[in-house]
Amino acid sequence: MTKDNVQGAGEEEQQAQSKKALKKQQKEAEKAAKKAEKQAKLAAEQQEADEDDFAKDRYGICPMVQSQQKLDRALVRVQDLTPEKAEQQIWVRARIHTSRAKGKQCFLVLRHQQFTVQALLAVGDRASKQMVKFAANLTKESIIDVEAVVKKVEQKIESCSQQDVELHVERIFVISQSEARLPLQLEDAVRPEGEGDEQRKRNTYMFWNKLREGRATVNQDTRLDNRVIDLRTTTSQAIFRLQSGVCQLFRDTLINKGFVEIQTPKIISAASEGGANVFTVSYFKTSAYLAQSPQLYKQMCICADFDKVFCVGPVFRAEDSNTHRHLTEFVGLDIEMAFNYHYHEVIDSITDTMVQIFKGLRDRFQTEIQMVNKQYPSEPFKFLEPTLRLEYKEAVAMLKAAGVEMGDEEDLSTPNEKLLGRLVKDKYDTDFYVLDKYPLAVRPFYTMPDPNNPKYSNSYDMFMRGEEILSGAQRVHDAQLLTERAMHHGIDLEKIKAYIDSFRYGAPPHAGGGIGLERVTMLYLGLHNVRQTSMFPRDPKRLTP
Amino acid sequence: MTKDNVQGAGEEEQQAQSKKALKKQQKEAEKAAKKAEKQAKLAAEQQEADEDDFAKDRYGICPMVQSQQKLDRALVRVQDLTPEKAEQQIWVRARIHTSRAKGKQCFLVLRHQQFTVQALLAVGDRASKQMVKFAANLTKESIIDVEAVVKKVEQKIESCSQQDVELHVERIFVISQSEARLPLQLEDAVRPEGEGDEQRKRNTYMFWNKLREGRATVNQDTRLDNRVIDLRTTTSQAIFRLQSGVCQLFRDTLINKGFVEIQTPKIISAASEGGANVFTVSYFKTSAYLAQSPQLYKQMCICADFDKVFCVGPVFRAEDSNTHRHLTEFVGLDIEMAFNYHYHEVIDSITDTMVQIFKGLRDRFQTEIQMVNKQYPSEPFKFLEPTLRLEYKEAVAMLKAAGVEMGDEEDLSTPNEKLLGRLVKDKYDTDFYVLDKYPLAVRPFYTMPDPNNPKYSNSYDMFMRGEEILSGAQRVHDAQLLTERAMHHGIDLEKIKAYIDSFRYGAPPHAGGGIGLERVTMLYLGLHNVRQTSMFPRDPKRLTP
Repeated sequence: MTKDNVQGAGEEEQQAQSKKALKKQQKEAEKAAKKAEKQAKLAAEQQEADEDDFAKDRYGICPMVQSQQKLDRALVRVQDLTPEKAEQQIWVRARIHTSRAKGKQCFLVLRHQQFTVQALLAVGDRASKQMVKFAANLTKESIIDVEAVVKKVEQKIESCSQQDVELHVERIFVISQSEARLPLQLEDAVRPEGEGDEQRKRNTYMFWNKLREGRATVNQDTRLDNRVIDLRTTTSQAIFRLQSGVCQLFRDTLINKGFVEIQTPKIISAASEGGANVFTVSYFKTSAYLAQSPQLYKQMCICADFDKVFCVGPVFRAEDSNTHRHLTEFVGLDIEMAFNYHYHEVIDSITDTMVQIFKGLRDRFQTEIQMVNKQYPSEPFKFLEPTLRLEYKEAVAMLKAAGVEMGDEEDLSTPNEKLLGRLVKDKYDTDFYVLDKYPLAVRPFYTMPDPNNPKYSNSYDMFMRGEEILSGAQRVHDAQLLTERAMHHGIDLEKIKAYIDSFRYGAPPHAGGGIGLERVTMLYLGLHNVRQTSMFPRDPKRLTP
Repeated sequence: MTKDNVQGAGEEEQQAQSKKALKKQQKEAEKAAKKAEKQAKLAAEQQEADEDDFAKDRYGICPMVQSQQKLDRALVRVQDLTPEKAEQQIWVRARIHTSRAKGKQCFLVLRHQQFTVQALLAVGDRASKQMVKFAANLTKESIIDVEAVVKKVEQKIESCSQQDVELHVERIFVISQSEARLPLQLEDAVRPEGEGDEQRKRNTYMFWNKLREGRATVNQDTRLDNRVIDLRTTTSQAIFRLQSGVCQLFRDTLINKGFVEIQTPKIISAASEGGANVFTVSYFKTSAYLAQSPQLYKQMCICADFDKVFCVGPVFRAEDSNTHRHLTEFVGLDIEMAFNYHYHEVIDSITDTMVQIFKGLRDRFQTEIQMVNKQYPSEPFKFLEPTLRLEYKEAVAMLKAAGVEMGDEEDLSTPNEKLLGRLVKDKYDTDFYVLDKYPLAVRPFYTMPDPNNPKYSNSYDMFMRGEEILSGAQRVHDAQLLTERAMHHGIDLEKIKAYIDSFRYGAPPHAGGGIGLERVTMLYLGLHNVRQTSMFPRDPKRLTP
């Protein structure tokens, strides 16, 4: 092949390409011309529209709020929109929950947290055709500021929390736009699920056209993958407000009883409780562990004369358990308390604390309880005063009488725990009780043996609706007995030296326990999965978001 | 060598050994006989003594409290021993703080927490010679129950907290014995340290016979290695009771302001803030990280409409900083809040919260403040209402006027922070102020730029006694701008996808901040090391106890 040939071939090719390019350019030019024409037309229309639009300053998209100015404008909360405000001109910030255009009108439902109100835009004095169209086109979940007049309504608006008023909108500005396509719909996420219809398929958003008369529900993984949206539902808002209340009631009750709040380290040098189920952390040039409980530290505080201590903090368990009630990270509400002569003094303190929590929730969080019940119906939580305390032996006898085969010193299986809960509920009409005097063999090494029967121990669990929420005991406060018990359990004494040494310089008798926060919230509300009461749950398969 | 020979040699050897053994046996028999004789003599003496001892049932060592019985005995607290109880017969449980025998008398100082009372045993009607001797021989820090009559004293007992009464002991029983040799003496551990005498030598318990007129102090590592004892001092008791108060005041103030408490995960899937200084955790078959702050989660809660949230929990920093104010694990008091139009709404909420904390400490913890001041004298903490807010530019100008050479957009060094604190104190007479509008370049990627000057940002730090205790800002709530800022900082977008996606479905403008609990306690009390305000501190060199 000569250069010319090449050149010749090249020329032909070039000519062919030139033709193609020309055609393409022409097409693009035409396209551009059309676009320009269209844009010019749109601009003209817009200008005309703007000129025509007497309301053009009454709506629009605000620039991102970057703290440009200190605006002297009071915003009224949706929950405060009541008939007392009728005829008042007010500003509200809320999300667009739903939107429905109808002729010259646009109905919006505005939502803030668990509260909703109806808002109306109608073409007229205060709103132009363009303005109503603008409102109708806003995406759901966008955050808007509206100026409106509060109007009493004659017929209750059943679909909103604020049933006696609606807003007549006069100005509407977007503060933050939502993308049009939501990963889940809020109305689906609060729909009660049918019995046995629970969805378990991962990462799928299911529409159950047939099963649920055309109505969809949202499965748990979709919820958790899009937790920011799922947490906006009335149910989630109620669950986590109530959970915040559990923590507050727990602490307030204990502070009133003279307890001191302590902070214990989560990074520890040795796996204290035998070494199983513990997460390892790289710690500079060495290794460390994540604390499975604040156990040893709260006991050290007792040895350090703080007498009554509590702490609220994360607890880590590297258990590969994929159940409805296990998390690898949960929040522990921990108590430890010196007593005078008998560990029942401590049981009484803890059960009273639980009762104060139950009463506080019942009295202060009735709205939240009812909101959750709409989606997840359950019986009201029942408890006795004083709290029912059964001995382990009695429980075994009750189970045996109900046909269960088990040994006297065998631990309770989960099904047996639940069955026992039902038996206790039937007999004593309570959802909360204490099971005392567990067999020594099934408890940790630091548990004080029963003084009268070496096969049993001064230890206890507490149950809500038949599930364990607290495990506790009198602890061994004598260094020599503690050493013996640790050796009996095959624990490396070198690793717990600091712990055992704590008891060498005078230690008061003491007992305590650890409560799982998520379980308390779950069981109080009669929910069925601990992931519903953990904002960002961690299990062997979930580390995000 | 024949077998016989061997045998012969064996016999000789055996004979020699037999002689030796015989001698040994004889010696041991003699020893045993002597011992038996001695024991018999002791037993006889004891029996005689017991027979002689009319008070033998009034003292002794109790069996370990194993909850053998529910004793119906009220114990009076040391702090409640006042002249109103004069002539009453009461029971008290306390530690032996000091003990001094003097002829037929024994003076004990009994301690419970930060309170002390003098107790007297004297040979007489109610106490035998043997009983006084028994009391005198008890080890310091042992826990005892005493029955005693409360007696008014004519001259105040200056060395005790209960100065107007003493106890005349009639019964004394040991509940828990301390080993005789303590790793540190409590009276040494509360002694004020001389200027510049601070001990830094590791693992050594120093007696400064010359420097401190024969009086010892305890260095920090000895304290921390034996934290259970060190925490018993009046100073430690006061520090950690006050710290419990800081948490309580923080939460109560925020709950009154309508905040919700949240719990955020500590195990996270991606190092969110660039990946430096983060601890790695083994998580089943994969790796995870320990959260350096709840930043991303509290923001997600804002996107989920909780509006105003706070959390109290551990924060982990894998920084190899060995300074007086760095820990690898500390307690974060975190706030995040949606605002209407300007992030100063959030600054005002946070500064008001701090002021409520300062006022609460001043009004409710004066005893504790004075106790700490005895060992570590400091000026009372001063603050203004409203809180002083300076702009970063003004601070740089003040520093430059004081002779510091620095660039306008340079970060503050620790010495410059401290100097600025002194300049501010001199000019405005406050130990607490806000520095607003930091240069954008020195803040994290999620910081909102200043709308008027792109070199600055809507961010702030807060200072106590010239040291930073809070860092905060308006956050970028727009997914697009957030993406741009993350890219500008070279952050892997894939790793923060869930975070950025949180802002795609409508996000309110918001701001917040994180406070270091240990620093607040340290600086409020005018202490000089954050290890004094962390019960079980963690730093690059310390993982125990």
